[in-house]
Amino acid sequence: MLKKFNHVAIAVNDLEKAASIYKNALNAKVSNIKDYKEHGVSVVFVELENCKIELMKPLGNSSPISKFLEKNKDGGIHHICIEVSDIIKTRDTLLTKGFKILGDGNPKIGAHNKPVLFLHPKEFNGTLIELEQE
Amino acid sequence: MLKKFNHVAIAVNDLEKAASIYKNALNAKVSNIKDYKEHGVSVVFVELENCKIELMKPLGNSSPISKFLEKNKDGGIHHICIEVSDIIKTRDTLLTKGFKILGDGNPKIGAHNKPVLFLHPKEFNGTLIELEQE
Repeated sequence: MLKKFNHVAIAVNDLEKAASIYKNALNAKVSNIKDYKEHGVSVVFVELENCKIELMKPLGNSSPISKFLEKNKDGGIHHICIEVSDIIKTRDTLLTKGFKILGDGNPKIGAHNKPVLFLHPKEFNGTLIELEQE
Repeated sequence: MLKKFNHVAIAVNDLEKAASIYKNALNAKVSNIKDYKEHGVSVVFVELENCKIELMKPLGNSSPISKFLEKNKDGGIHHICIEVSDIIKTRDTLLTKGFKILGDGNPKIGAHNKPVLFLHPKEFNGTLIELEQE
């Protein structure tokens, strides 16, 4: 079952500049830059009252967001992340109903150290959805 | 100042089908279809614990999301909406810093009956941002 909206992830070309805009023009609370080598991204967290915006730029040579930025020169919304009460049950329901799970179908440990799965954008209105165990 | 994340708006081609997927495959609470003629969209609200996903399809001949769906055949994330404590102060800060406000720069009454402004995606990492008075 869908629970909390966890974050919206925005791919950006210049992370310092993007963070500065949120901090100085929109007066938001932003974190320092954090590198996630195993996920191929550097991230700045914009803290809203009820969830986060994650500004991401590629890190390393095989970043999962490099192609996205080639197609979207200005950057853009890469995915949304929603928490679920039981990620295995949610996965199994989706598989039973004929939906695809990206990768091998098994949850991976995401950047928040919780199990995550990604759904196929073609099946969800062009939207890449990350499901995270709450 | 940025406060709560209000919603992410996803443009879809088939609103009944999109709502059914969120309801039946993701086990989410979804509203009936609501028509907003003055905004040119029909909307289904997906209720998460801390905010909403708004599934939108064009309504009428001059919908602001028709062109988006021509470019994004599967649908896609159209904009995000963030609440601000003082929309006029936020607007004036943005203008002072050289940012653009879409339209004539004056807040319009949005679908939630509150004043809203839209920022230019080119200036915000390819992301259309709606600011709403909290």
